[in-house]
Amino acid sequence: MKTMKVGALIFPGFELLDLFGPLEMFGMYPENFDIRLVAETGDPVTSSQKPVSLPDHTFADGERFDLLLVPGGKGTRQAVNQPVIMEWLQKQSEIARLITSVCTGSALLAQAGILDGRKATTNKNAFKWVSGFGTEVQWIRQARWVQDGNIYTSSGVSAGTDMSLAVIADVLGMDKALQAADWTEYFWNEDPGNDPFAVKAGLVPDR
Amino acid sequence: MKTMKVGALIFPGFELLDLFGPLEMFGMYPENFDIRLVAETGDPVTSSQKPVSLPDHTFADGERFDLLLVPGGKGTRQAVNQPVIMEWLQKQSEIARLITSVCTGSALLAQAGILDGRKATTNKNAFKWVSGFGTEVQWIRQARWVQDGNIYTSSGVSAGTDMSLAVIADVLGMDKALQAADWTEYFWNEDPGNDPFAVKAGLVPDR
Repeated sequence: MKTMKVGALIFPGFELLDLFGPLEMFGMYPENFDIRLVAETGDPVTSSQKPVSLPDHTFADGERFDLLLVPGGKGTRQAVNQPVIMEWLQKQSEIARLITSVCTGSALLAQAGILDGRKATTNKNAFKWVSGFGTEVQWIRQARWVQDGNIYTSSGVSAGTDMSLAVIADVLGMDKALQAADWTEYFWNEDPGNDPFAVKAGLVPDR
Repeated sequence: MKTMKVGALIFPGFELLDLFGPLEMFGMYPENFDIRLVAETGDPVTSSQKPVSLPDHTFADGERFDLLLVPGGKGTRQAVNQPVIMEWLQKQSEIARLITSVCTGSALLAQAGILDGRKATTNKNAFKWVSGFGTEVQWIRQARWVQDGNIYTSSGVSAGTDMSLAVIADVLGMDKALQAADWTEYFWNEDPGNDPFAVKAGLVPDR
């Protein structure tokens, strides 16, 4: 397999685990996933929890990616209104082989029009806000993550790590996904339908 | 409660999830945990998976921390031989209220002498290497994490996130730990004895 270039979007107020959970898992196979952080400019980017990351690429540098990763976090409230982010997502989504988002990152994809005609999910406590974006998105209330074609959207924060292992299973095979979980001593929730947090958030009745 | 200043050590080749899993959880309570990244110099630090972090403090700047977080990663193989890191850990551990490590981060604590006379654990696949450090450490082969007094050491990578919630439970109360897990849609493995990876790694028999 040709190495997939992973373009992970960062913006002020991104959520640490949304980003670094999936990147930990993709990072188990550096020969398959070449990880790069991408931001509007080359300046340091402060996360929602305060630790600061340095981007490897800027929107303007023309780099194209095979796999997009869009984290959520408090910063999505601003990012969703930034045309430069929407344009970058639209341009990249046209050529990316796979598109992934974690938590409220799906609000950015929806606002960019990338989820129109697709099923998608998001953070359960932010469901009302996120599901206001996108004109023809079929928002799924209860799901750890949702795959629709080449787009994977996960539920809140930790769900992104579970989703990333599903992506690895689809790209490299289930044995590689299980191996990554073992190496990182991760209890993988393999079932995309296992979402007790939708019940806790009152989005679906407790059955 | 007075805000605890969290000093999270970073060094070249640190493991992303070792660091950012616990910081995600501590970051749920910014009024209680003030998160800072600390490195030898102010230069950007490249993780084992490639994403780059910027430190907030250097070893030389004299900042003292209430809670230490020491991640593991491939870089521990070099870090364990660096006197400047050992000296920083020794100095900080004398005044820190709580000391935590994830994965092979416990090799650094052991080499610095901080684990002498204590029970501790580490990554299960690196157990042999890590347990060669420290002269009087009681290395526990099977544990998701081990608490001994004010020192918490966790098993590999993902185990650090489980441990960090136990720290939050001890500092702020169990309800706050459960709340953080809910906010981040995290399936918390609350039981420090639940460690199937010790069996998988052949450290203990499968019973």
